[in-house]
Amino acid sequence: MSANEGSLIENCARGWCARMMESVAIIGGTGDEGRGLALRWARAGIRVILGSRDAQRAASVAEEIARRAGGAARVEGAENAAAASGSRVVILTIPFEAQAATLKHIQKALQPGAVLISTTVPLAAAVGDRATRVLGVWQGSAAEQAAAFAPEGVKVAGAFHNVSAALLESDHEVECDAIICTDDAEAREAAAELARAIPGVRAVDGGALENCRIVEQITALLITVNIRNKVKHAGIRITGI
Amino acid sequence: MSANEGSLIENCARGWCARMMESVAIIGGTGDEGRGLALRWARAGIRVILGSRDAQRAASVAEEIARRAGGAARVEGAENAAAASGSRVVILTIPFEAQAATLKHIQKALQPGAVLISTTVPLAAAVGDRATRVLGVWQGSAAEQAAAFAPEGVKVAGAFHNVSAALLESDHEVECDAIICTDDAEAREAAAELARAIPGVRAVDGGALENCRIVEQITALLITVNIRNKVKHAGIRITGI
Repeated sequence: MSANEGSLIENCARGWCARMMESVAIIGGTGDEGRGLALRWARAGIRVILGSRDAQRAASVAEEIARRAGGAARVEGAENAAAASGSRVVILTIPFEAQAATLKHIQKALQPGAVLISTTVPLAAAVGDRATRVLGVWQGSAAEQAAAFAPEGVKVAGAFHNVSAALLESDHEVECDAIICTDDAEAREAAAELARAIPGVRAVDGGALENCRIVEQITALLITVNIRNKVKHAGIRITGI
Repeated sequence: MSANEGSLIENCARGWCARMMESVAIIGGTGDEGRGLALRWARAGIRVILGSRDAQRAASVAEEIARRAGGAARVEGAENAAAASGSRVVILTIPFEAQAATLKHIQKALQPGAVLISTTVPLAAAVGDRATRVLGVWQGSAAEQAAAFAPEGVKVAGAFHNVSAALLESDHEVECDAIICTDDAEAREAAAELARAIPGVRAVDGGALENCRIVEQITALLITVNIRNKVKHAGIRITGI
C-alpha cells in the first residue's frame, strides 16, 4: 500500500468519499454517453450536474433525465464551465475532437484537487475515418491528453470507455467492467465508487493512466464486434480476478 | 455473406474443415503458449506437430505433452521449418523479437494456401521494457507483420493472444475468449475450430486482421491486471453477443 493509499483510507474514514460524491459534473453531458451515465448515477441517488455548451439545452436534458430516473433524482443542467466549478468529481464525455478545446474552456473552473475522469475514445471517426479504428494521440491516449490540459493538482483517471452508451440509456442490466487507469489513488477510488453505483458494472484496477492507451482502443474493437455479430451492446468482462 | 464465405461452407461440406484439421503445427511450440495450446489441442484429439529451432528439444517436449494429454494423444516434435511443411494450419507462438526471423526461416516450407495464425504480442519486454507495455509495430501489429513476411496465398489470422499460457498448461478450466481477426474466411474458420476445441474458450469474430492492433495490446493490459490484482490468469469475455 502506498502512502497515498494509506492517507486515502484515513480520508475516507473522515468522510472524504462522501464529500467527493456530493455531486458529479458531466461535461458534454447531453451526448449519448453523458446522458446514459447521468441516468444511472441519478438512479443511484448521486446528484448530477449536466454540462453543455448551451445551458438551456443542459437544463432541458437534465429535466428529462430526472423524470426518467424518477423518485428523488437530483439532476441539474449548467454551462460546461459552471458545471465543472460546482463539483469535486468531473467526468468528461465529449467526443475526442472537442476534448482539448473543452478542457481549455473549463480549466480555470476546475476546483483545486478535483478528480477528472475521461471517458473519451479517440475514434478515427473524429477525422471522418471509421469508428472501428483509433487515432494516434500525441500524449498516448485521450486520458493522457486530458491530463496534459488539466491544471496542476487535478487528479486524472480514465474509465467507463467500454460501457455502451445505448445500454446505459436503456432499462437493461449493464454487463461490462469499468477498467480504471490512473496514477492517483483518490481518482481511482472516486471512479470505482461511480462504477459500483451502476448495477452490473464492476470496477477493475487497470493500473497506470498510460494504460488508457489500451482501454480506449477496446471500445473501437467492441464497435467491430457489434457490427460483425449484429448486436448493439457488446461489452467486456475481465475473468480470473 | 461474401462469395468467399459461401464457397467456404461448400468446402466444409466436402470435408475441407476435416482436412484442414488433420494436424496443426505450432512454430516455437516449446515456449509457454505453444506448450499450453499443444496440450489442449492434443487432449481434443487434434494431431499436433511441435516446432522448435532444436528438433531434439521439440521431440522431448512433444513426448512430455503427449504423456500429460494421455490417451491416444498425437504430439510429435520437429525442427520449425519441417513442422511448418507438414500442416495446412500453422500457429506462431514465438516471442515478438523472433517472429520476423522465424517467418523468413519457415517461408519456403509453408504449404500454398496454408492458414497461418499469429498469437504473438509485441510486448515491450522484447526490448527490455515492461511486459505491461507494447511496442509500435511498423505494419500495425505482430499479426500484420506476420502477413507481410508470409508468402503470397498464405492466409493469415491473429488469435489466442489473450488466453493465459499458464492457464492452458494447467488443469484448470479456461475462461477466456479468442478474438479472431483476419481478412480471410478460411483462416477465420480454422481459428474458430481450434478455439472451440479448448473447453471454456469461445471464438469471437473480431473483424479484419488490422484489429489485431487492439487485441494484441489487451494481453499487456491483462498482465497489468494480473499484477494489480495479485492473480495469474486474468482473461477476457466479450459480453452482449
